Amino acid sequence: MTALASLVNHQLRLASRPVGPISADNWQFIEAPVAEPAEGQVLVQTLLLSLDPAMRGWLNDARSYIPPVGIGEVMRAGGIGRVLVSRDPAFAPGDLVSGLLGAQEYCAAAQAIPGSRALQKIDTRLGSPSQWLNVFGIPGMTAYFGLLDVGQPQPGDTVVVSGAAGAVGQTVGQLARIKGCRVVGIAGGPAKCQWVVRELGFDACIDYKSGSVRDGLKQHCPKGVDIYFDNVGGEILDHVLARLRPKARIVLCGAISQYNATGAMVGPKNYMALLVQRARMEGMVVFDYAPRFPAAIAELAGYLKDGRMKSREDIVDGGIAAFPRALDMLFSGQNFGKLVLKVAD
Amino acid sequence: MTALASLVNHQLRLASRPVGPISADNWQFIEAPVAEPAEGQVLVQTLLLSLDPAMRGWLNDARSYIPPVGIGEVMRAGGIGRVLVSRDPAFAPGDLVSGLLGAQEYCAAAQAIPGSRALQKIDTRLGSPSQWLNVFGIPGMTAYFGLLDVGQPQPGDTVVVSGAAGAVGQTVGQLARIKGCRVVGIAGGPAKCQWVVRELGFDACIDYKSGSVRDGLKQHCPKGVDIYFDNVGGEILDHVLARLRPKARIVLCGAISQYNATGAMVGPKNYMALLVQRARMEGMVVFDYAPRFPAAIAELAGYLKDGRMKSREDIVDGGIAAFPRALDMLFSGQNFGKLVLKVAD
Repeated sequence: MTALASLVNHQLRLASRPVGPISADNWQFIEAPVAEPAEGQVLVQTLLLSLDPAMRGWLNDARSYIPPVGIGEVMRAGGIGRVLVSRDPAFAPGDLVSGLLGAQEYCAAAQAIPGSRALQKIDTRLGSPSQWLNVFGIPGMTAYFGLLDVGQPQPGDTVVVSGAAGAVGQTVGQLARIKGCRVVGIAGGPAKCQWVVRELGFDACIDYKSGSVRDGLKQHCPKGVDIYFDNVGGEILDHVLARLRPKARIVLCGAISQYNATGAMVGPKNYMALLVQRARMEGMVVFDYAPRFPAAIAELAGYLKDGRMKSREDIVDGGIAAFPRALDMLFSGQNFGKLVLKVAD
Repeated sequence: MTALASLVNHQLRLASRPVGPISADNWQFIEAPVAEPAEGQVLVQTLLLSLDPAMRGWLNDARSYIPPVGIGEVMRAGGIGRVLVSRDPAFAPGDLVSGLLGAQEYCAAAQAIPGSRALQKIDTRLGSPSQWLNVFGIPGMTAYFGLLDVGQPQPGDTVVVSGAAGAVGQTVGQLARIKGCRVVGIAGGPAKCQWVVRELGFDACIDYKSGSVRDGLKQHCPKGVDIYFDNVGGEILDHVLARLRPKARIVLCGAISQYNATGAMVGPKNYMALLVQRARMEGMVVFDYAPRFPAAIAELAGYLKDGRMKSREDIVDGGIAAFPRALDMLFSGQNFGKLVLKVAD
């Protein structure tokens, strides 16, 4: 048994709410003691933390699908950890688990609640721990249910996905290909675009940093767009709206281009294309699909095993101290693949 | 047989494309001869013409669900007419018909194409000729299929409809009540709001001209909005987005507040509420449902007959010459009920 009294829990807490981009003084680093877990709890050591665009929204004091992180609270974050002490018969020391561990080195409170999105054991025969934050984690589940349930792809459909090299986008595109669609990505920079086409098998990828998205869509989607999986919002959404096919579906997953905006959010000015094309734009929140996660993971694991799908993570080393810097990378598009922070080995 | 050579066909043609609101010099009045109909055609005298918000869009040289009206062409308009001469065995002189007659006194080219939206006989036992441009016409069909097929109302749902006293809005609200929903209208001015509540049985109506739509929605939709049937767009759409319930549906039918805008269209800045609430916004074009019009008309006729539904028209007298003025009334919200132009008795 670990000598808990000798452990220090480095935590990242929210000191104040950011206005616009997050700055250093919005965060506070704390050293807390590590407590013995209570009956039914386990003590988990954080190994990896997931960095997600949605985190910016959690810092706003606004009505959303989840309450905001409170001032003084440990920053909310999903992660992979190792069970150190267990007072829950479902877990044993050494088990690898995923759950909302928070931006801290030790988490004593995570509980296993059947069917919930709390602590779950992960099966490393299916994939690496970092893949459990990507294709088998929230991004992969978002891609799976957003594309299949909301987007309802049909063979031959043209699917466009923004943030194509990101955590959600990479799985959306590969899954759409597997389902018989033609897939066009949108990503920033030639390296990401090349990877998406050459390694992931997208039919094309538009570099929004070096050319016109409008022209790229015209070239690569000559018949228009059946499904747009939107991770970015902003003007790219408007460009895609202008090229929708009849009965098109826009899966609204995120709007990272807008999350740091301080002025009023800009709405999609071409939204009346939805009327003209009898199209729909629909939002989704992945947690609604939690009971179906195991089946989705099993399907995706099959694609990974037979080589039809890849899962790429961009792992930043540096522990909890590097969390703010890693999060910034996400909003400036510096990550290449799912962004993960390594907290411990 | 009418002496066709003695008839003059006063027509309204499009002289130039408006930028912003339509002005007098966008129109041209022409006197044309009335030709004998060809084999398979009928000659129809226009009695009533429908004035529709969509007409503004038909004047723009832009991709839409229907080609724009060409410069020099007779203005497109649906209407009710009387068959004067028939060379189609499906019609006899004296028959009352509805169809795209155009803004003119006589129409020689209308043909009966089975299953299409061309010339159709109307049954005045079900309703008056002006009602055939309203509840049994395109507005009624838009309300019926937009609400039922796209909106999918469930008993107990809170339904909000803008343009509540207008052609589409009045039928949407009454139909939603019949389907067991709570209905809140949005209309301009106390007279329209009172009529909508007292005569049509809406649960409440918000006067957007005299108060805050935001506060009105808060007061009358305390639990939020399940279905929003949007005829107006603009900031009212944003106010409703901010009050959506989970799994809400926005039926995108029109955006009359924006049709005369000369700058860039303003998009709904609160559109990310669709994500948070797992809601959808979906466009519809009524002509897609043409094969199901007869069944819808039969159902609506039943409601009219048993007194559960009313159909109000605002009939402007003055013939083809009054068409431009009547169309202006629509965009300034002066009409009260479905706006119809009387061309002949």
